[in-house]
Amino acid sequence: MTEDFRALGIRLRNWGRWGADDERGTVNLITPDRLVAAAGLIRRGTVFGLGIPLDENGPQSGNGRINPVHLMAETGDEQLFPGGFRYADDYLFMPLQGSSQWDSLAHVYYDDQMYNGFSARDITVKGAAHCSIDKQANGIAGRGVLLDFPALKGVDWLTAGAVISPEDLDAACAAQNVTVGRGDILLFRTGWRRKFLHDGDAAAFMAGEPGLGQDCCEWLHEREVAAVGSDNWAIEVLPGEFPDAPLNVHMVLIRDMGMSLCEILDLEALAEDCRRDGVWDFFFAAPPLPVTRAVGSPVNPIAVK
Amino acid sequence: MTEDFRALGIRLRNWGRWGADDERGTVNLITPDRLVAAAGLIRRGTVFGLGIPLDENGPQSGNGRINPVHLMAETGDEQLFPGGFRYADDYLFMPLQGSSQWDSLAHVYYDDQMYNGFSARDITVKGAAHCSIDKQANGIAGRGVLLDFPALKGVDWLTAGAVISPEDLDAACAAQNVTVGRGDILLFRTGWRRKFLHDGDAAAFMAGEPGLGQDCCEWLHEREVAAVGSDNWAIEVLPGEFPDAPLNVHMVLIRDMGMSLCEILDLEALAEDCRRDGVWDFFFAAPPLPVTRAVGSPVNPIAVK
Amino acid sequence: MTEDFRALGIRLRNWGRWGADDERGTVNLITPDRLVAAAGLIRRGTVFGLGIPLDENGPQSGNGRINPVHLMAETGDEQLFPGGFRYADDYLFMPLQGSSQWDSLAHVYYDDQMYNGFSARDITVKGAAHCSIDKQANGIAGRGVLLDFPALKGVDWLTAGAVISPEDLDAACAAQNVTVGRGDILLFRTGWRRKFLHDGDAAAFMAGEPGLGQDCCEWLHEREVAAVGSDNWAIEVLPGEFPDAPLNVHMVLIRDMGMSLCEILDLEALAEDCRRDGVWDFFFAAPPLPVTRAVGSPVNPIAVK
Amino acid sequence: MTEDFRALGIRLRNWGRWGADDERGTVNLITPDRLVAAAGLIRRGTVFGLGIPLDENGPQSGNGRINPVHLMAETGDEQLFPGGFRYADDYLFMPLQGSSQWDSLAHVYYDDQMYNGFSARDITVKGAAHCSIDKQANGIAGRGVLLDFPALKGVDWLTAGAVISPEDLDAACAAQNVTVGRGDILLFRTGWRRKFLHDGDAAAFMAGEPGLGQDCCEWLHEREVAAVGSDNWAIEVLPGEFPDAPLNVHMVLIRDMGMSLCEILDLEALAEDCRRDGVWDFFFAAPPLPVTRAVGSPVNPIAVK
Repeated sequence: MTEDFRALGIRLRNWGRWGADDERGTVNLITPDRLVAAAGLIRRGTVFGLGIPLDENGPQSGNGRINPVHLMAETGDEQLFPGGFRYADDYLFMPLQGSSQWDSLAHVYYDDQMYNGFSARDITVKGAAHCSIDKQANGIAGRGVLLDFPALKGVDWLTAGAVISPEDLDAACAAQNVTVGRGDILLFRTGWRRKFLHDGDAAAFMAGEPGLGQDCCEWLHEREVAAVGSDNWAIEVLPGEFPDAPLNVHMVLIRDMGMSLCEILDLEALAEDCRRDGVWDFFFAAPPLPVTRAVGSPVNPIAVK
Repeated sequence: MTEDFRALGIRLRNWGRWGADDERGTVNLITPDRLVAAAGLIRRGTVFGLGIPLDENGPQSGNGRINPVHLMAETGDEQLFPGGFRYADDYLFMPLQGSSQWDSLAHVYYDDQMYNGFSARDITVKGAAHCSIDKQANGIAGRGVLLDFPALKGVDWLTAGAVISPEDLDAACAAQNVTVGRGDILLFRTGWRRKFLHDGDAAAFMAGEPGLGQDCCEWLHEREVAAVGSDNWAIEVLPGEFPDAPLNVHMVLIRDMGMSLCEILDLEALAEDCRRDGVWDFFFAAPPLPVTRAVGSPVNPIAVK
Repeated sequence: MTEDFRALGIRLRNWGRWGADDERGTVNLITPDRLVAAAGLIRRGTVFGLGIPLDENGPQSGNGRINPVHLMAETGDEQLFPGGFRYADDYLFMPLQGSSQWDSLAHVYYDDQMYNGFSARDITVKGAAHCSIDKQANGIAGRGVLLDFPALKGVDWLTAGAVISPEDLDAACAAQNVTVGRGDILLFRTGWRRKFLHDGDAAAFMAGEPGLGQDCCEWLHEREVAAVGSDNWAIEVLPGEFPDAPLNVHMVLIRDMGMSLCEILDLEALAEDCRRDGVWDFFFAAPPLPVTRAVGSPVNPIAVK
Repeated sequence: MTEDFRALGIRLRNWGRWGADDERGTVNLITPDRLVAAAGLIRRGTVFGLGIPLDENGPQSGNGRINPVHLMAETGDEQLFPGGFRYADDYLFMPLQGSSQWDSLAHVYYDDQMYNGFSARDITVKGAAHCSIDKQANGIAGRGVLLDFPALKGVDWLTAGAVISPEDLDAACAAQNVTVGRGDILLFRTGWRRKFLHDGDAAAFMAGEPGLGQDCCEWLHEREVAAVGSDNWAIEVLPGEFPDAPLNVHMVLIRDMGMSLCEILDLEALAEDCRRDGVWDFFFAAPPLPVTRAVGSPVNPIAVK
């Protein structure tokens, strides 16, 4: 619990593991055979979209990130095509990390280096020369596993600052009778989205959150998890465990381990379905928008059972 | 060939077929059993992202739609977190129909009605009250089939104005030894993307295109195709077959049949792979961003073989 | 006080006064001779910019309008011009009515008509065909007069809901020894900006405000004032005097009288200077950005003494 | 003509002239007495707005900068206020240097320093810590003088690459019987806007332009001009006189002399009026939007005669 994040980062570091040029990180753990196996989890033919609605009622309260602004450019008014054709068109302005989203491996760094040792100077006003989200253009698809902590704890939602520990991860796996292994995409539900839907308080949503403690990094590393997603906005617990090193889990997971994070998901319907049928794994696919040199992307992941 | 689009629309109309309230149209043809069957097409574990890069080098030349504008909001500069954490963040401004995209069923209409008889007055400056893209939030996933017309015709790309006929569709199916049937997502390659990559001429890309002729609507209707996508920007041939009724195929497919269109795809790598292994069907998934009341969405579809 | 706003509107209506085609309204009262006379108010050579800073710390709390988002596109990084030239460039995304701004005469309407009887149907998703802000492209320049109500009342700021009456306007004129007359631009200070600078509470800034009561419309009409501006965001008192007719002053001033409103100004430095030298009139110039068919424009008015 | 721009820059440098902290440059030359004198040029009471329309028909062709995108957020549709009030609202997305605009003194730099020796590192993804446009929030107002080169040369417009020399400036002054002196804002017309209005070719507008040659820097320096504006987009001739030092005039004027540039103006109506009455000087006011830390601002300057 008290290990310095830098020491932990060195210990769990995947730099060079997939080559000196690798910009995709732990997604490489989803080998073709695992993707084929994941397809076998499509048993019933039901799809769950995990992206939250993109509109002004989102969880951003305006500090650096805003909610998406959707504006119509055409409604058919003032159009004069022969034959009767009319069309509607629209525009969107949004922060790429403000709604359901993938963090690219260029999203965070420390000590002037990002994942795989790329220089932080590769990130300029023109975007990221390395590890940008378009390097994941083929998407992150494979076996998804959902762990449901409010169900485990018998609460509506975990509270801000509540630390999820490796023991909690193990307990959830045991309670749900599911395993998490090599190349899996781990989704964990904290109830933070449900709380936001309940109280609509964007400032409270962003002020803190339940999430992973630093020790979970090792748990994810040992199991060779490919990616991790949640209904909170930063994966990790906030305020963090170390006041003098905020966002420590981001730093170890993204920068040292090369793990992509999928945040601000809506796991409500999927969790309810899994509770009903007792099946907690599924085919998961979440292709980002391949925005050139972007450090993140909005995404609408799907889980298919 | 000379049938009036309104008469054809009445004949092929799917209004009411999936209920008076339906806002998803032919996507309803992807029944659970077909989705499960489609999963079986993931045989090798290879993913192809079909979305084009989102950047200023896209195919828009500025008439109503522009290329996406990506701007960094944070690079780590001027950040003063304790512990060393630094992050990068970015923003995107874009037309929702300017890059690889789904047209929602509210994208076009005529005679004051859109798909399923919803009133065109449902489309206002605030977006579409019905048939908006978020109604497809679970995405469009199922069996994809690719037809490769440049390969069929022995050319690099079809030319602007070149009409793809039902006979061409049949010929491509026969040549590729593949069938298109109920609930399939049909992708067809015209080479228009390849031409754009070759000459980089956005104005030429938008000025016209090879694409489906009007008679193909019936072909798609008979086979109960769920959705159609292409590497051109409007699915249909442009200039169209009827100067006094431009965008006639849009009107029949989207407004009368309720078929979602996926445009401006990059099918180059997928087509090359299919030509190599002779397998032209695959698992296809393309979840739109659930932008509330939007009439379209950028998308990065994936094909998994 | 209890007159129905529609009745008042009919009584004060300037429709047709400057021709059936007029789209500029009371700004027409600034005749050339008055503009020349206003130039004589430049006696000391001091300029006061009255626009608030455009940044994320503005008064918008995200309901429909957001604060301006300023993003750099270039900083000089990654540029390779011969000779050493480097440049910085930037982008802005903003609501046109979210900061210091002119309301155009197309900004509000009722009963399907706007100023001068133009049809509300002239306002579509493509903007306003009549009375848009670019019709004021030459700007609104002339004699400005400032009335300082916190000074008059001996408070730091008036409170939300505090009604400024015609008697208050007269009292301020008398106390300041200044007159308001034909073709003048009347600026009045409520302290609402000062309060916002003091507490930084955007939600409180927008939730209500001190401002003009409905009876002031007649006062402005009688004196033939050309335009009115303030440090609040709606000129008029909020909540308004008539719960069943919110924004009644907007409706009478803009729609019936054709008066342009200049809102969310910073009058602090100007007021302090006027208190010091006892001179409350000045040359005023506020050219809007001529955004085609826009219904408002950000503006940085200047007062020159 | 052949002097190296760095040598010239050192010779004409105004660094420290108005203090080590100065961020306003030559605008300081507009002393209060000169502003008061400029007011005396308002003789007839006629205003000319010099800003071009902000819309998609502007001169940008999409390389880095786009034309402004104006989108309506409200038209009155779907509003349900009691009493009948309806309002229209809109949004704007634009590059700050894409239309009529002020370049801030942070807009260009070389050799890691900008005006007054401030470090180029002050310009980050968060904007400019020094010399940003909001430092000119009080606007640039004073005596404006227009020089009309197409009239002088008897042509509709000068051609791309046509160099305006100090001799040309003197000849124009003599022909127009006007002087340019201390604290004046010099506007010069090249006809480049007129050409754009004639042919509508944005790519041609941006590909080159007639403008000031490098020797004019000294001319402006000697006369102690406060600012310079034009109907072209870069003030200086393009392609420039020195292929190995493009934008040399920008570098000397902005970075060394601290002179603000006002570009892409529409001087047509003003020039026509001046030709008619033979009066080439006027009161000029051009307050930028005080966008915090921005490196430029759209502006709609006014000339008042």
